[in-house]
Amino acid sequence: MESLSLISISSLIICIVCSYGVDGYIHYNTGSGIVDGKLNVHLVAHSHDDVGWLKTIDQYYVGSNNSIQGACVENVLDSVVVALRRDPNRKFIFAEMAFFSRWWEEQSPEIQQQVRKLVDDGQLEFVNGGWCMHDEATTHYIDMIDQTTLGHFLIKSQFNTTPRAGWQIDPFGHSAVQAYLLGAELGFDSVHFARIDYQDRAKRKGDKSLEVVWQGSRTFGPSSQIFANAFPVHYSPPSGFHFEVNDDYNPVQDNPLLFDFNVEARVSDFIAAAVTQANVTRTNHIMWTMGDDFQYQYAESWFKQMDKLIHYVNEDGQVNVLYSTPSLYTDAKYASDESWPLKVDDYFPYADSANAYWTGFYTSRPALKRFVRFLSGYFLAARQIEFMVGRRSNRGNTDALGDALGVAQHHDAVTGTAKQHTTNDYAKRLSIGASEAETVVNSALSCLTDSKSNGQCTASTVTFSQCQLLNISYCPSTEQDIPQGKSLVIVAYNPLGWNRSDIIRIPVNDRNLVVKDSIGNVVESQYVQVDNVTIELRKLYIEAYLGISDKRAAKYWLVFPASIPPLGWNTYFISSKQSKKGIDTLRRIVSTRDLPSNETVEIGPGNLKLSFSLTLDNLRACTILKPDKHLPMFPIDIPVQQSYLWYSSSQGDADPQASGAYIFRPSGSTPSVVSRSVPLKIIRGPLVDEVHQQFSSWIYQIIRVYKDRDHAEFEFTIGPIPSDDSIGKEVITRLTANMVTDEVFYTDSNARDFLKRVRDYRADWPLTVTQPVAGNYYPINLGIYMEDKKSELSVLVDRATGGSSINDGEIELMLHRRIMNDDSRGVGEALDESVCTNSTCEGLTVRGNYYVNINEVGNGARWRRTTGQEIYSPLLLAFSHEDAETWKSSHLTKATTMESNYSLPSNIALITLQELVDGSVLVRLAHLYEGGEDPDYSTLAKVELKKLFAGKAIKGVKETSLSANQDKSEMKRKTWKVEGKSESGEPFAPIRGGPLDKSSLIVELAPMEIRTFILTF
Amino acid sequence: MESLSLISISSLIICIVCSYGVDGYIHYNTGSGIVDGKLNVHLVAHSHDDVGWLKTIDQYYVGSNNSIQGACVENVLDSVVVALRRDPNRKFIFAEMAFFSRWWEEQSPEIQQQVRKLVDDGQLEFVNGGWCMHDEATTHYIDMIDQTTLGHFLIKSQFNTTPRAGWQIDPFGHSAVQAYLLGAELGFDSVHFARIDYQDRAKRKGDKSLEVVWQGSRTFGPSSQIFANAFPVHYSPPSGFHFEVNDDYNPVQDNPLLFDFNVEARVSDFIAAAVTQANVTRTNHIMWTMGDDFQYQYAESWFKQMDKLIHYVNEDGQVNVLYSTPSLYTDAKYASDESWPLKVDDYFPYADSANAYWTGFYTSRPALKRFVRFLSGYFLAARQIEFMVGRRSNRGNTDALGDALGVAQHHDAVTGTAKQHTTNDYAKRLSIGASEAETVVNSALSCLTDSKSNGQCTASTVTFSQCQLLNISYCPSTEQDIPQGKSLVIVAYNPLGWNRSDIIRIPVNDRNLVVKDSIGNVVESQYVQVDNVTIELRKLYIEAYLGISDKRAAKYWLVFPASIPPLGWNTYFISSKQSKKGIDTLRRIVSTRDLPSNETVEIGPGNLKLSFSLTLDNLRACTILKPDKHLPMFPIDIPVQQSYLWYSSSQGDADPQASGAYIFRPSGSTPSVVSRSVPLKIIRGPLVDEVHQQFSSWIYQIIRVYKDRDHAEFEFTIGPIPSDDSIGKEVITRLTANMVTDEVFYTDSNARDFLKRVRDYRADWPLTVTQPVAGNYYPINLGIYMEDKKSELSVLVDRATGGSSINDGEIELMLHRRIMNDDSRGVGEALDESVCTNSTCEGLTVRGNYYVNINEVGNGARWRRTTGQEIYSPLLLAFSHEDAETWKSSHLTKATTMESNYSLPSNIALITLQELVDGSVLVRLAHLYEGGEDPDYSTLAKVELKKLFAGKAIKGVKETSLSANQDKSEMKRKTWKVEGKSESGEPFAPIRGGPLDKSSLIVELAPMEIRTFILTF
Repeated sequence: MESLSLISISSLIICIVCSYGVDGYIHYNTGSGIVDGKLNVHLVAHSHDDVGWLKTIDQYYVGSNNSIQGACVENVLDSVVVALRRDPNRKFIFAEMAFFSRWWEEQSPEIQQQVRKLVDDGQLEFVNGGWCMHDEATTHYIDMIDQTTLGHFLIKSQFNTTPRAGWQIDPFGHSAVQAYLLGAELGFDSVHFARIDYQDRAKRKGDKSLEVVWQGSRTFGPSSQIFANAFPVHYSPPSGFHFEVNDDYNPVQDNPLLFDFNVEARVSDFIAAAVTQANVTRTNHIMWTMGDDFQYQYAESWFKQMDKLIHYVNEDGQVNVLYSTPSLYTDAKYASDESWPLKVDDYFPYADSANAYWTGFYTSRPALKRFVRFLSGYFLAARQIEFMVGRRSNRGNTDALGDALGVAQHHDAVTGTAKQHTTNDYAKRLSIGASEAETVVNSALSCLTDSKSNGQCTASTVTFSQCQLLNISYCPSTEQDIPQGKSLVIVAYNPLGWNRSDIIRIPVNDRNLVVKDSIGNVVESQYVQVDNVTIELRKLYIEAYLGISDKRAAKYWLVFPASIPPLGWNTYFISSKQSKKGIDTLRRIVSTRDLPSNETVEIGPGNLKLSFSLTLDNLRACTILKPDKHLPMFPIDIPVQQSYLWYSSSQGDADPQASGAYIFRPSGSTPSVVSRSVPLKIIRGPLVDEVHQQFSSWIYQIIRVYKDRDHAEFEFTIGPIPSDDSIGKEVITRLTANMVTDEVFYTDSNARDFLKRVRDYRADWPLTVTQPVAGNYYPINLGIYMEDKKSELSVLVDRATGGSSINDGEIELMLHRRIMNDDSRGVGEALDESVCTNSTCEGLTVRGNYYVNINEVGNGARWRRTTGQEIYSPLLLAFSHEDAETWKSSHLTKATTMESNYSLPSNIALITLQELVDGSVLVRLAHLYEGGEDPDYSTLAKVELKKLFAGKAIKGVKETSLSANQDKSEMKRKTWKVEGKSESGEPFAPIRGGPLDKSSLIVELAPMEIRTFILTF
Repeated sequence: MESLSLISISSLIICIVCSYGVDGYIHYNTGSGIVDGKLNVHLVAHSHDDVGWLKTIDQYYVGSNNSIQGACVENVLDSVVVALRRDPNRKFIFAEMAFFSRWWEEQSPEIQQQVRKLVDDGQLEFVNGGWCMHDEATTHYIDMIDQTTLGHFLIKSQFNTTPRAGWQIDPFGHSAVQAYLLGAELGFDSVHFARIDYQDRAKRKGDKSLEVVWQGSRTFGPSSQIFANAFPVHYSPPSGFHFEVNDDYNPVQDNPLLFDFNVEARVSDFIAAAVTQANVTRTNHIMWTMGDDFQYQYAESWFKQMDKLIHYVNEDGQVNVLYSTPSLYTDAKYASDESWPLKVDDYFPYADSANAYWTGFYTSRPALKRFVRFLSGYFLAARQIEFMVGRRSNRGNTDALGDALGVAQHHDAVTGTAKQHTTNDYAKRLSIGASEAETVVNSALSCLTDSKSNGQCTASTVTFSQCQLLNISYCPSTEQDIPQGKSLVIVAYNPLGWNRSDIIRIPVNDRNLVVKDSIGNVVESQYVQVDNVTIELRKLYIEAYLGISDKRAAKYWLVFPASIPPLGWNTYFISSKQSKKGIDTLRRIVSTRDLPSNETVEIGPGNLKLSFSLTLDNLRACTILKPDKHLPMFPIDIPVQQSYLWYSSSQGDADPQASGAYIFRPSGSTPSVVSRSVPLKIIRGPLVDEVHQQFSSWIYQIIRVYKDRDHAEFEFTIGPIPSDDSIGKEVITRLTANMVTDEVFYTDSNARDFLKRVRDYRADWPLTVTQPVAGNYYPINLGIYMEDKKSELSVLVDRATGGSSINDGEIELMLHRRIMNDDSRGVGEALDESVCTNSTCEGLTVRGNYYVNINEVGNGARWRRTTGQEIYSPLLLAFSHEDAETWKSSHLTKATTMESNYSLPSNIALITLQELVDGSVLVRLAHLYEGGEDPDYSTLAKVELKKLFAGKAIKGVKETSLSANQDKSEMKRKTWKVEGKSESGEPFAPIRGGPLDKSSLIVELAPMEIRTFILTF
């Protein structure tokens, strides 16, 4: 018996052969615009292309290493262009210009012309338009601006257009600075994103408040608002409507001659999904994000299905579907004249479920985070110097560093959430960029300092070198013996706009050196023996990263004070003393073992004193004798305990959520104390006192108190974090002060505004606390502080760091993490960094600094703002060996490029000074204070451009948007209606600096204002 | 300490920003033609698109069900067109017109125009061009011709072009008929394929004989040769050169601004792979098959890489690379004037490793195989009848059946190697097609038989029905009571070109019936009680497949002889006897239990006698008293044992190769005997004697010996094969004759030529025997025979079947397989077919027939050829209930559409008679005998077209190629030089029929000739 399937399907006729004559072609009507009175579904076609994550950026671009992830951005762009050209109604948005630039360069003139037309016709729209979709938690606002400018310049130069929509769909929480600065101040009408706290989302879905008017700046208030659209689910399409090539989906099958015709079913699915979304959304406009990570490998696969859905759903008529973009969607929202809920502050921290707070990445990969921050400051200085001598094609430029930093701001780069090999790629790019910038700087400094060159500087005779590994005492230029008749010449460049006194520390081997300043006066100096921890670190890391087997480590730190004019330099000469007899002895080292154990020891050669209880072997109190200009000197004395602890990482055993690169999930809320009793080694000197403490075999700390500084500098060296127990450890430092802080503390937003944080509380919804530690962590880029009725305790950081105040009077910073599990958010690797030489591997050691200040309440801002700038923009040191007298006679040893004696106001920073490819100069000035932050400095300040650029004639000045892609005067801003607020009911009118006077060229800056100019000379 | 990766890569410069001015576009030079004197690498871009396998054809087409396999042929064709248009040098080939037709219909006129241009310009070339890439082992040559014609018609009508290359890259071994008939006779210059025996391939690689001149026909010899190219590895590209979107490969990275620039490395890889292939290939042309299963989902992904490789490899200059096609490649081979090894016969069986003989699929899914074969014959008859009344749009047509059969010839369809759900889809398509054809036939027969209609036949008064499940005694029309005053009218249509005497068997419930012929004479009839096995089968299967709960099974078979004119019909009338008294008694049933156990019992009412030894309870001897016209009657007496056995399927435990849908791998060489002692039940009658045997609970057999037949008909009912021991079983029947066959037996090639097989031997290489059973299996579509000095024993089959002669004097056929393991060739399912009702599932039962004949040596061909046609083209029976007298007075009860008394010669079959869409008529005549096969019939025969189409005026006759896509006279044939043969040294000049005489319209056919004509009337 045969299995004769005599199925009778009378309605289904297979008729292939006979139907050649029949025209089976269907022209899909995709041209629907918005239809009033219907629910409008805006299909926004997009591909989310991470600028590195599981693969490197170039692997993603060309589509190599597909065994890790099938992803090729070249395919996306190639195929999108073809697909868009098939139907003028189709639209697509693209965000990541680091990818677009790679592609754009490779295109033929014909394709470029096609793409220009697509952009002109609104079919291809750039959203965000930065180099990457930057992270918002671990990025510095200057980096955010720089990387956005890089992308916007490309768009402007190639397409003469400006992006209108922020598209931050993937970053892990959203910052206030993003909303107002990298949003409204860029000229964006809207910002769109997927990741907000799951409790927040649930609440917002309930009261239709996913879409809000976001005023991210307390200072600017309603003058800097943006429409913010948090997606109801994610940035992928509703379930069942993703159409990636080779993926499993139900295509719309509308050929009646084939089996499985399903038009009605698919239309009905579509309408159901639309109605579900409409039920949580205000107005009759909803957005479907038609894309996902690296989708549109073959764009036609998506557009074919969307064409059909638009055709058939509109034919059905219950809802209206259209190809759209975030800006068209925003226009429709705006046109609806709806009032929107007001949102202030930010969307941190982000949790996607009860035990999944994405607060681990605030600290993940602290070495990478430091490398990025270090080079960010270096890039600022290098561009200044590059500007001073002018871009020359034969001298290289700082562009590679700008590109590498642009890439590094990506939300899987500086976040520390990329795979290790990708992280290595970021580091490699940064390193190459840094090397090139270093070459530019060395060459430019030769030129600038040469008094005969007059900026022409064709053949430089001086070879400068720089030392980027000073932190581990590695600097061949200073360590080597100074040749007979020569001096070690140190040119110290100050990128800040005001005069600066600082301390220079260099490793040397000679204890018989004399330091002289630019006019030959001897400068007081101090030697400090290099500690063994640093010697071992140096040995391992230069072998691992430079391949150099270290024969002779530096023995001493030579410390001396330096004073440098704004945007200028000073020169110091170090030479061997002629006579050996007057050798400085090393400062006496005091071990606590040599002291009576009931004693308290005080250190600090200046006003700041730290007292250590020898009973506890630990920091007990800080005292600052504050020599403020405005206040009578009186002591502030706060008892502070400082310690190191670690949280055990959850391994996700019971509940499957482990701690990992993204997520901080401690096992329990109580961290383990590394050591309760730590001996002190105290080194005193005229410039600096140091307290060395070995907390454990893998935590070393030096506290430095300088004579002329108001803060204590804590240098920590953490690692390798033990892993032999297979338990991840997340290491914190904790300062416990005797302060009544009422659950409140303050953290910065991208190193710009300070936001008030209240423990176990969210302003936007009643918080259910599931993670009492991780749920109170916030990102820190500048600092964290707390206050009580009398005092403030502030901590500034040298890189992006997670931190919190888990108990009143406490501040903690997470400094390093070593974790054995993956946290199941895609990266697929445990965050277990190691350093390897040919012979061994061990866990990565991280060294860094944080800075602690105490102050009277309300008075800490000045220290935070000024010191913050100094930390971000350290002195740039260049070294050479030359005859000091010859040098002095032929070189400018001390100079400023500003008008002599001019200085920027203390509340103003020059955050960009950069010569552009066309010879014009990009200048950004930033007011450093928020409204009301400081009685003296939160005020309108003025900058005289003519004095800033002394010796250069300013021919033209144009004020622009933040990213310099449009004239300030041409920027259009929507004013959104805020629910429950009358239009005139604003609490205060934000201050803005007035228009630039074209003759005086004096720029006014109000608190928090950043003004951007393009100058021509 | 930060992990500063200060990697110094001085040669690698990242310079994105600065390079907008730089034109990064590279124009790839892809225009290389062939370069003499260099190794030429022909890149042949292709996508191998199975017409159903893991997914159904429509799922593959639209890209649904991608969870099984990411595959969408729509994407392939869409994206290939775009990619080809980007560069006029790019080329692509496409084979499967079942897919192309679906796509073509849906395209806009603009795209169709673009595609026409691509075809005209040689960028898109159709290869094979059939509806599918048919299997070559389990297909009937008529099906192969039909499905190829279907595709070639589409190509011809839409593109006015004819494919030139055979592209059988995936079928599992290659047939002689493919080479000469579906190759040379189609006008193909070449055929290309991947799958040949691994030992054969190794040997051919060694002596550079992968490419051969293949003369598949012994009869035609060198007059029908084709260039055959067996690939050195597979139909995918050399390792590392596949470029499917999202797959893991090394793209050519030629942008020096990105990391991982690799042009030199990729060029060097390319050259190495080319040289490796050149080392096993004659001439300096090699072909790279740039594609794989369902590749080119996004064609640009491939072409982009190939563009680059062509550009850079040619720039390198060591080898030359070009876009090519199989026909261009073949032209280059031909132009090289090389001599090629000669290949005759075929490439069966196929093994890809020592224990992996792909000989299981010869039998896999025997029910599907029978369904296909049954409908193939039905399609032939239905098209004849459709032609007779003319195609009418309002009457439906046979096209859907043609389409379904076209799809079913695919090398994963009729082969039984598709997944079950896909197999169901094939069956569904066949069933729908059969239903439509049945409607056409019923309607046409009403018209044809109506003597008043004159073929106009607007309103038919008679409703015919047909019974496709007669094999399980299900036929409502014959079973129901005949209404008072009416008769059961049976119109029996004979699709053969000669007069035919046959036996009609129908199930009835009335034992009191009389059969009368068309002029009222009573015809002798016989009743046979329906056996219980059949009753149970019927009950289960009509419930399972028709959803009918069987209340009353038919009780009796009514058997009577019929005689029908060629291409005509006869009518039989069955009525109840008026008087009850003369009721026929059922013929006496003799059980062997009733007979003395030492006796021998002989059955057979005619010349053929079968003797059964009651000791052995089995067939012991066949005797035929041969009433040949040419020879004196003398007895041939051969002792034959017949039994059922099963091989246990290897489960792949020790060596990982299991038996499965493709592969036959028995555990050991000795099958288990199902039963050594089987009681006989003998039923005798005037027309037929039957021997019923229950071999086991799951094997039932009826041997029928008819009065007027030279053969015994064996009807087997096998299943459900027990699986409770979890061991797969592959069930065979074995005939053991007392013959000295010297390891030789003969099997057919696609039911056309017979090829000599020698056990454990291959003509082309010294065989290492690893599988003494599986390695000797061959595909059987018509039959298998063996001979000794005196006699021949022939077996004909009713479907594709695997078979062999494992020992001298033995013939075995594998009839059914039920296997518990997958054989790891992709299908991913065990071949474990089941049949299910609402309440239960059980293993599939298969019923079928084979036919055994003995003859004097050299004389069996007539029986095999004539009976083969009768088996393939059974009588088509249509039933109605009408008043016999009224019927006779108003209907043509017996007629032929040929000239009265004209008949085709016995050695000629009309294998196609079909009205085409344009009203012209496609006619194919086939000579049934090979050269030298029969002294009388292997001769030139003549067909008079005028007599064949009596009553119609032939206006035009055009002889064409086999697929009717070009005039015969225009066919160009290459003559290839054969190694070691002088051009004049052919052993004999093949005979061909002469040109058609335009006035007499007499067609001459030489042995094995098939001539194709398009006629207009």
